[in-house]
Amino acid sequence: MSLLFKNFRVHQVFGANTDVGKTILTSGLVRASAAKKNHVFYLKPVSTGPMHDADDEHVKRYAGPLGALVTARCLYRFDEPVSPHLAAEREGAQNVPTDDAFVTSVASYIRKCASGTTERSHMYIETAGGVHSPTPSGTTQLDSYRPLFLPTILVGDSRLGGISSTISAYESLLLRGFVVDAVLLFKDPYHRNSEYLEPYLAERGVKVSAVDPPPPREADARKNFMVTEEYYRKLASDDRAGGLLGVVEHLDERHEGRIKELHSMPRRALDTVWWPFVQHGLLKGEGDVNVIDSAWGDHFSVFNGHRRSSSSSSPPSTAGLGSLLESQFDGSASWWTQALGHAHPALTLAAARAAGRYGHVMYPRAIHAPALRLAERLVHDGPGKGWAARAFISDNGSTGMEIALKMALRVASRRFGLAPRERKTMGVLGLRGSYHGDTIGSMDACEEGVYTCEWHQAKGYWFEPPTVEIENGRASVRVPSAVAHRDVEGRSLSPSWIYDVGARLDTPLARAYRDLVDGTLEKLAGRPGAAPLGALVLEPLVLGAGGMVFVDPLFQRVLVDAARARGLPVVFDEVFSGLWRLGLRSAAAALGAHPDVAVYGKALTGGLVPLAATLATEDVFGAFEGPDKAEALLHGHSYSAYAVGCEVANVALERLERLGVGETWSDARAAWGAVGVARAGAGERREGATPANAGGGAAAAPAPAPASASATVWSVWSPGFVDVLSKLEIVDHAMTLGTVLAFKVRGGDAGYESHSAEALLNTLGDAVGGSGRNVTSVPGGAPSGINFRTLGDVAYFMTSLNTPPATIRAVEDRIWAVLGR
Amino acid sequence: MSLLFKNFRVHQVFGANTDVGKTILTSGLVRASAAKKNHVFYLKPVSTGPMHDADDEHVKRYAGPLGALVTARCLYRFDEPVSPHLAAEREGAQNVPTDDAFVTSVASYIRKCASGTTERSHMYIETAGGVHSPTPSGTTQLDSYRPLFLPTILVGDSRLGGISSTISAYESLLLRGFVVDAVLLFKDPYHRNSEYLEPYLAERGVKVSAVDPPPPREADARKNFMVTEEYYRKLASDDRAGGLLGVVEHLDERHEGRIKELHSMPRRALDTVWWPFVQHGLLKGEGDVNVIDSAWGDHFSVFNGHRRSSSSSSPPSTAGLGSLLESQFDGSASWWTQALGHAHPALTLAAARAAGRYGHVMYPRAIHAPALRLAERLVHDGPGKGWAARAFISDNGSTGMEIALKMALRVASRRFGLAPRERKTMGVLGLRGSYHGDTIGSMDACEEGVYTCEWHQAKGYWFEPPTVEIENGRASVRVPSAVAHRDVEGRSLSPSWIYDVGARLDTPLARAYRDLVDGTLEKLAGRPGAAPLGALVLEPLVLGAGGMVFVDPLFQRVLVDAARARGLPVVFDEVFSGLWRLGLRSAAAALGAHPDVAVYGKALTGGLVPLAATLATEDVFGAFEGPDKAEALLHGHSYSAYAVGCEVANVALERLERLGVGETWSDARAAWGAVGVARAGAGERREGATPANAGGGAAAAPAPAPASASATVWSVWSPGFVDVLSKLEIVDHAMTLGTVLAFKVRGGDAGYESHSAEALLNTLGDAVGGSGRNVTSVPGGAPSGINFRTLGDVAYFMTSLNTPPATIRAVEDRIWAVLGR
Repeated sequence: MSLLFKNFRVHQVFGANTDVGKTILTSGLVRASAAKKNHVFYLKPVSTGPMHDADDEHVKRYAGPLGALVTARCLYRFDEPVSPHLAAEREGAQNVPTDDAFVTSVASYIRKCASGTTERSHMYIETAGGVHSPTPSGTTQLDSYRPLFLPTILVGDSRLGGISSTISAYESLLLRGFVVDAVLLFKDPYHRNSEYLEPYLAERGVKVSAVDPPPPREADARKNFMVTEEYYRKLASDDRAGGLLGVVEHLDERHEGRIKELHSMPRRALDTVWWPFVQHGLLKGEGDVNVIDSAWGDHFSVFNGHRRSSSSSSPPSTAGLGSLLESQFDGSASWWTQALGHAHPALTLAAARAAGRYGHVMYPRAIHAPALRLAERLVHDGPGKGWAARAFISDNGSTGMEIALKMALRVASRRFGLAPRERKTMGVLGLRGSYHGDTIGSMDACEEGVYTCEWHQAKGYWFEPPTVEIENGRASVRVPSAVAHRDVEGRSLSPSWIYDVGARLDTPLARAYRDLVDGTLEKLAGRPGAAPLGALVLEPLVLGAGGMVFVDPLFQRVLVDAARARGLPVVFDEVFSGLWRLGLRSAAAALGAHPDVAVYGKALTGGLVPLAATLATEDVFGAFEGPDKAEALLHGHSYSAYAVGCEVANVALERLERLGVGETWSDARAAWGAVGVARAGAGERREGATPANAGGGAAAAPAPAPASASATVWSVWSPGFVDVLSKLEIVDHAMTLGTVLAFKVRGGDAGYESHSAEALLNTLGDAVGGSGRNVTSVPGGAPSGINFRTLGDVAYFMTSLNTPPATIRAVEDRIWAVLGR
Repeated sequence: MSLLFKNFRVHQVFGANTDVGKTILTSGLVRASAAKKNHVFYLKPVSTGPMHDADDEHVKRYAGPLGALVTARCLYRFDEPVSPHLAAEREGAQNVPTDDAFVTSVASYIRKCASGTTERSHMYIETAGGVHSPTPSGTTQLDSYRPLFLPTILVGDSRLGGISSTISAYESLLLRGFVVDAVLLFKDPYHRNSEYLEPYLAERGVKVSAVDPPPPREADARKNFMVTEEYYRKLASDDRAGGLLGVVEHLDERHEGRIKELHSMPRRALDTVWWPFVQHGLLKGEGDVNVIDSAWGDHFSVFNGHRRSSSSSSPPSTAGLGSLLESQFDGSASWWTQALGHAHPALTLAAARAAGRYGHVMYPRAIHAPALRLAERLVHDGPGKGWAARAFISDNGSTGMEIALKMALRVASRRFGLAPRERKTMGVLGLRGSYHGDTIGSMDACEEGVYTCEWHQAKGYWFEPPTVEIENGRASVRVPSAVAHRDVEGRSLSPSWIYDVGARLDTPLARAYRDLVDGTLEKLAGRPGAAPLGALVLEPLVLGAGGMVFVDPLFQRVLVDAARARGLPVVFDEVFSGLWRLGLRSAAAALGAHPDVAVYGKALTGGLVPLAATLATEDVFGAFEGPDKAEALLHGHSYSAYAVGCEVANVALERLERLGVGETWSDARAAWGAVGVARAGAGERREGATPANAGGGAAAAPAPAPASASATVWSVWSPGFVDVLSKLEIVDHAMTLGTVLAFKVRGGDAGYESHSAEALLNTLGDAVGGSGRNVTSVPGGAPSGINFRTLGDVAYFMTSLNTPPATIRAVEDRIWAVLGR
């Protein structure tokens, strides 16, 4: 991942095109840096073309009297002057590094140079061809080098057409988030590209410097050498003489400014930012602030300069003193949003495409392609398949849930003919520990608790849920005392049996669940002056913010059946659980029952921008139709169905679907026995189980049976790891589904206010590994820590759907190393 | 604006660079289209270089026996073979068209050709140089041509480095939202760029076609002609023979597919979409659906194919039959969000930069540059300047207001030592007609009304507000009957006097306001068992969704003073009114009083993506600090302070600030007399007026005086227009501030459920003008309608802060034409 050293400045030089003078200008920079008495490292990771033209030779040759200060190196050399991916192909496969190997070799070389020098140093890394020219692996350079996130210099094109190619190359750099510290190009008094580019790029914060082009080649070799030497001498002089010393100073300033900015950020954040869910009073100082400089895939690149103690183990004499940026595995998937990893180029391009075509446009009574495609995808091919008819698109999960509540409450008001007073007080049925977002309305659908605020009024009744836990290596259902039957199905449990709800519908436990639910509902209805119930509101399978509680799906199914029998609309809050987060397109599939309303968010955009969708049946939609404007669903945020969000969601959903149903996780599915279940009896068994649905009241439209093939449970976390984890003394129990792993810490305070999980895992944040074993499979092989969030006494970890299995194994090892102490 | 004709297919050909074979391949396309018996139009808007090389000559020459079907044309011709902006400069200024004139001349020529032909036709528009080469005006082509939003063909680069330049050019096209229907390039068996690009772009939905390069130039002119002619003949053949017929068919399919898709969208939207604030039961059919194909600046480009009656006035014999896309002025600024116009390239690039660098990263206890800069900008240099200490960044205005309410209610709970029961029931003080967003908590801060849903519980007391109105040409304050003193300050009113709150603080009306407020508050407090008040919650200056009601700022100031005197925290909901929407950075400045909490949204990102910020004083922040996690503000959405939103907001705020304080609106300020007020006495007078602030209770931190220089009122709408508007029989009164113009329609039903304003303005939606007077100043001079929203009997119009004054004048003319009937 990204590297940054205090006294070892690194810049990567990209070209707007091939043959724009990249090597000449990089040589000039090398020489100018050397002239300022810096030790200079020149790295050409990939070189193509005949040996005597090799760029490192060239650089050395023209370093002149300063050559002693210059170290030049090429990592991959190919003879044929074609694109590296072709050259590699033509010269035989043994020369072709993978993307990971490629970027790791570059990073290792940088680290080696940084730690091996004691002087102020500059390094210039010259890329090959244009910004998007392929590396030997075939990936284009911008994507190949992106994990290193080095500050860049763009060599512009001074020829006819060069204004365009320079701006386009700059824009491609921006699309990968690169910082462009300088644009260099040759002066050309005829085409005058630099005159155009200077103000154009200055407005975008980039300094353009133009220098004289090299002299024409002399026929006489000796004369040519002298003329060239003279030219390079001039490049190492100051600006007035047409040199690059000013550029070197500018790059030094940018480098120092960057480090200064990073150093200042913790203090400034503590002074001005108000963080959500953070008790600022408990922050001890700058060390508590995580400064994220960039992110890529599963990792943050974080600044560590404010955390270094004076007792650092790095030898104080080296210039590099270790990288000021280190890698951090994003162990909470950035609050449960990441599904395709950070800075995914396909999502960036989708955002750019929609922003460039629409910006944001008016939504009510208007339609644009991204919103229409998203609505259709969700309803017809996504989690709404088979039951939903309408998509209401809004901004975030909490507002999506407020919309869902407004829908369900309206349906109930009409269905039961509620009086105005009852409409205000009717409650929801749910589970203790539910959480549906932070807005006050969504909160009112939950019990009073630590999260609730002044205006909170708990509206409803919440059952204590039976939970699924792996305790001491054994999967079990922990049944609350209110359930009369405590014997859990009298046979040895496996996750695939627990989640085979269809097969469990006739068990004694199912009957005990039904007895409890029916009895409770009768009691509630019988209370004098009782507020009526308006909806069943559930987070399928897992209560997220409530502590990553894995609920027995059989109990949720019994609740759904009971709600249907009474004509209560069923709302599934799938903001967290849906879209493959738990390994299923919709976690609802595991219940064998469809909702009337369901909400999606978080992973909906793959983890880039906020968006939510509330799906509903035609029945629910119909409850708002009428001749009167005031009967409509009068809820809409200004950015409803904004084009950027919808377009990103379309691309994300397509990729998630590919990962969800594709072969990526076959090994994980097999390890959890999910494949067998999916291909064998589950289908039939589930279909046999759905008639219970038909018991729904006449007013509730019976939902068709869900597709069963995807309703098998599996996890990206390895069964063996979860097994040993659950057997640890300190662990009460663990559980996992899909990308989520959670375990409860024993001892200490319980609940959200506890700090026990955080305290236990404290050292996970430290970056370790790298030089030896690459413990977190970070691209570029850097040491890495793990960024994690806890929920009081519950620790959890979450991956994206495209996190490499090797990374997950490394994270498991790391957790084990910390817990096994 | 954008053009699309059923039988007249237009494609614009861009080059990945200069000299990549654009003219040759375009000639090939021309010839292949002609070979398929289409009439072919070839347009080279700008040509540079010697006359005999002119591309239109070239195209004609090699059209061979098909030449009769080909019409070729160049609009701007320069002799010198340099970038057009330089050529134009060198050949004298009279040749240089402005951006508007340039794009209008291209659009006019397209329309002329489309309406002048009766046959199936293709048009190819060949650009000059690379995608970002400047046009004669100096703007790069992508931005110059963007208003026309024509489907594109990209000619790729087959040379060494061409993979990179082709991908970068493609990405620059995407950043402007362009649809790339095909990539063409020459085969090169050595560099094999096409082999790389085919799968790369196929994955991105773009078809790549490679054809043989032209033969080498023959010395003998006659032989050269024959060889070249043979080559072009081959280009007009089918694919197996290396020709472009397959490409032409592919382009035909894309064209037909696009029209088919647009035709299908209204029905599909009616079938699957659930729109906010729309009574679906009132939609009559597809004609009610506005299909937005793209947007640019102030205009949508909308499909009209489903709205055309058979009695269309277009002559049925022409192939073009008029464009299927027409222009629509975005008269509601897309639900009050647009502040810099649609698809602003700077905002798109900001979104891309942040997405490419971070994606979205974890926020609690973490910081990244875009979020930190935004927080600091808002607090120190933005609307929080002088009073705010903290920024809490969330997703949308409504959630931003929920956060504000939670802040204020906590402060009040602590300050007044409220019991748990009182914390749940305490109310807010506000104005009738207030609106703070759609989530249930924000709604509970308003009275019950048409917008409120089942769970709504109005918590508070709301005063009937005195309002500012221009009635029959006279500015006045309409005072509700509850106010004892009805004589409005006994002098002729001007808006600048009405909004000079400092000067009005000692008037009899101010005293009457104070009497009413104090009396009411005493009465409220005296009621047995009365719920305590927890906050004053105001939309400064204008109640937005409540009907664009302009409130007498003096009354709001009196309320603020009264709240402060009682220790009530003051919340300003500036989601709509702030950030220059009303011509002021913060509308609060006009009140001469600062809030304790204020919320910003909508224009915060310039109108691209959802984001909100809740600013608070250090005092408010302190109410959540403590040793206990549970005391923190436990509210946070997953995408809190997401990097894309923050980065876009940083760029937007910088540009809004430049527009707000710069010279852009000096004419408008002068017309409304605002400049004089700003530069003369207002400063002193306001400063003298602020001591009333000091009357605040000990518990409330006294806020410093706001900067007065910006607290002058002005409007982008012309005083003369507002004057005549307010004198119309049908108009009860009008009012305007900043970018907002509103007027109330007389007669018919009143309130939100009325359809009177919509009915009155019905025909505004029709596209008119274009060939003669350009009524809406649409780039490209197209006919245009006006897209507008109404609030029952209130009509309103809203511009961006960079809407050209000429466009506003044209909209005024158009409104006048409709109302003056």
